Amino acid sequence: MVQRKKSSAERLNPVELIIKKRDGGQLDGGEIRSLVDGFVAGEVADYQMSAWLMAAFLCGLDDAETVALTDAMLHSGDVLTLKSVKAPRVDKHSTGGVGDKVSICLAPLVAACDVAVPMISGRGLGHTGGTLDKLEAIPGYKVGLDAKRFEQVVRQVGTSMIGQTDRLAPADRRIYALRDVTGTVECIPLIVASILSKKLAEGIDGLVLDVKVGRGAFMKDLDSARELARKLVRVGRRADKKVVALLTDMSAPLGLTIGNALETREAIDVLRGEGPADTRELTLRLGAEMLVLGGVAKTTKDARKQLERAITSGAGLERLVRMVEAHGGDPRAVEDTKRLPRAPHRVAVEAPRAGYVTAADALELGLSSVAMGAGRTRADQAVDPAVGIELSAKRGDRVAKGEPLCWLHVRSKRGLAPIAERAGRAFSIGRTRPAEAPLVLERIAR
Amino acid sequence: MVQRKKSSAERLNPVELIIKKRDGGQLDGGEIRSLVDGFVAGEVADYQMSAWLMAAFLCGLDDAETVALTDAMLHSGDVLTLKSVKAPRVDKHSTGGVGDKVSICLAPLVAACDVAVPMISGRGLGHTGGTLDKLEAIPGYKVGLDAKRFEQVVRQVGTSMIGQTDRLAPADRRIYALRDVTGTVECIPLIVASILSKKLAEGIDGLVLDVKVGRGAFMKDLDSARELARKLVRVGRRADKKVVALLTDMSAPLGLTIGNALETREAIDVLRGEGPADTRELTLRLGAEMLVLGGVAKTTKDARKQLERAITSGAGLERLVRMVEAHGGDPRAVEDTKRLPRAPHRVAVEAPRAGYVTAADALELGLSSVAMGAGRTRADQAVDPAVGIELSAKRGDRVAKGEPLCWLHVRSKRGLAPIAERAGRAFSIGRTRPAEAPLVLERIAR
Repeated sequence: MVQRKKSSAERLNPVELIIKKRDGGQLDGGEIRSLVDGFVAGEVADYQMSAWLMAAFLCGLDDAETVALTDAMLHSGDVLTLKSVKAPRVDKHSTGGVGDKVSICLAPLVAACDVAVPMISGRGLGHTGGTLDKLEAIPGYKVGLDAKRFEQVVRQVGTSMIGQTDRLAPADRRIYALRDVTGTVECIPLIVASILSKKLAEGIDGLVLDVKVGRGAFMKDLDSARELARKLVRVGRRADKKVVALLTDMSAPLGLTIGNALETREAIDVLRGEGPADTRELTLRLGAEMLVLGGVAKTTKDARKQLERAITSGAGLERLVRMVEAHGGDPRAVEDTKRLPRAPHRVAVEAPRAGYVTAADALELGLSSVAMGAGRTRADQAVDPAVGIELSAKRGDRVAKGEPLCWLHVRSKRGLAPIAERAGRAFSIGRTRPAEAPLVLERIAR
Repeated sequence: MVQRKKSSAERLNPVELIIKKRDGGQLDGGEIRSLVDGFVAGEVADYQMSAWLMAAFLCGLDDAETVALTDAMLHSGDVLTLKSVKAPRVDKHSTGGVGDKVSICLAPLVAACDVAVPMISGRGLGHTGGTLDKLEAIPGYKVGLDAKRFEQVVRQVGTSMIGQTDRLAPADRRIYALRDVTGTVECIPLIVASILSKKLAEGIDGLVLDVKVGRGAFMKDLDSARELARKLVRVGRRADKKVVALLTDMSAPLGLTIGNALETREAIDVLRGEGPADTRELTLRLGAEMLVLGGVAKTTKDARKQLERAITSGAGLERLVRMVEAHGGDPRAVEDTKRLPRAPHRVAVEAPRAGYVTAADALELGLSSVAMGAGRTRADQAVDPAVGIELSAKRGDRVAKGEPLCWLHVRSKRGLAPIAERAGRAFSIGRTRPAEAPLVLERIAR
């Protein structure tokens, strides 16, 4: 009666590989490669891959399997070498948050300190923003350079920031699309392989990971964020890369802005020696790790000094200007941020009572920003670069009743009430000043 | 970064249903129905169903979920009522074994005792045989009656044995095909729902289950067979059917024949009061349960007497003749089994040494029979009704060196050596007579 038929796909034994994982077994490198290659070649069906992914979700993948999966996805497409770039090459990856514009100031700043940053970024989805959308707020900026031009810009400017191409880790793109619709997203080894396969295809020597923790992050609690960070570091090192991770707070938005042009402006402010303390601090902390991994500084303390000098001297800003030019963007928008897209209206969201801001919920503010058109709920939606939220009060600040908590930058005031209400509810106001919360929660180096 | 997109299928929330099961939750009846209906309607994709099936495999389905799944699959197609059949209606289902020809003698025998047997059977696959293939060894027998004619034959003859139609439990057929290629076959709740959804579509009042245990069975050990039997009984009863299960030995083939015409002949022998003791005994044990469930006997002891009388009187054989006629088959092949297809050659497999047969491995003998052409390894293969294996020694028998252990009935002697060797290796020969092994291991009634 109940008996498995032989199918033609069994030449490659996908069913055996599913059963092995389902029964708690470990797949060897050859088995994982045959699964991934077979999937890309159409010999392993979507429904087989999704069954395997669910088995992996529930039974786990050990480090060796995760390394093999990363490697198989990485080699499913082009792998850049950036041979012509003589500087050490280090990238940063964030697991995604609200108001996280750090890449835009970090990459030019690190490049100004003689570590090349070949950065391939993504777009915003759901409540989290994406670096590509923020870059495109700069008039003319093109994220779609080909591999040759990407290498040239990295060589000449020290950094280039582009979008993922069809030719980099195509297996990851297809597997991720499948995970997205089969309930297999929230799985640490699969996340690790997805992140690292794309980053390792960039031709980097080292990688600094910003693993966000909290309401506005993918990882809501410290334990799971730490588990993810440790696995990223272990697997990245087994792939012969220098890897360090910082666990950073994402219970509240980073900095004072959410929305593409607003965030780009804030990143430029940091390069001018201005901008909010937390955005600047996270930029320096991540940058210091990158300089140490790149070998241009012995200690993070020394590295930090170099980065601070590159801010003071304007060298970081100058790199951003050159990168924007190299990408076809208008450098005047960097030199004068009033040239960035601006929404015609600003509407205040007022404090309902006096007190201390005890929380500004990153998730709720991120979703409010999406509802305003700054983000997307489906991958094929366009975003409005001009709209967004500008915070005027952060955690620990005292506000009077009726004082603005934030400003909504909008195209029109029509139908804004529910969004304003949602943004207002994101703020908690208490009678006493909350204790200071650290921005960097942990550093994971092994 | 890692963030689930909204897909159009989310109107039905298949991803939520996958995640709920993945996280160990229980789906309610409406959720399971929406999953099954959505799958049949094409709104739930294959890759989503396979992810859900793997989650169900690894996280389990409780009885309420299994009842709901059975019900949803049952109602995905036509459900027969057999209103015009006045007799009680009871069927038997076997989980599949080697040499299991019981249905062919059992159904007419039970019908002769005034319990109607509307039986929808399957084909052989892998090492196990199928009732349809055995019936088709009778020249002219048609397994493809429509629902109306099926009901008519059950009413007039007391039993009809047909194949599954496209209109009965189509969800089960589609889900089973998917399980087959995604490593989700060996899962008790899914097996239970698959068996019961098809059987409950037959319009029966009661069901006797023959759950096979051992090397030649789907369930290799007593514990898992018992678990399957108990769940079948519980879920069947929650669906308002009378259900009893017997756990029966399938370490060795049942009876003395493997192969379609050979098995049909043995079943006819049982109806003549002949045939091997174990085939006869299992027929009587299962039949007795069916008579009790059908309400025509108070006890299995009483029921057994009725069945024995129906053998002695020839009433059982007469029912088979009438059923074969009603299906367009040649009744003379029942009356004179020499008219059944016969292979031109018989080749002995000889005992390599003297001793007692301590085991005759059902799996190896089943696979040998498939290799001879009596079974199929792919669902689309044809079978040769004439070929097969006839045992001349069973467990406990003493054999001299060179004495036949079994005979291979073949079309040609060419290339037979490896099959003969394999069949020979299926027999274990020891110095001492093995203890007698029971045929019926347990009876599960709740």
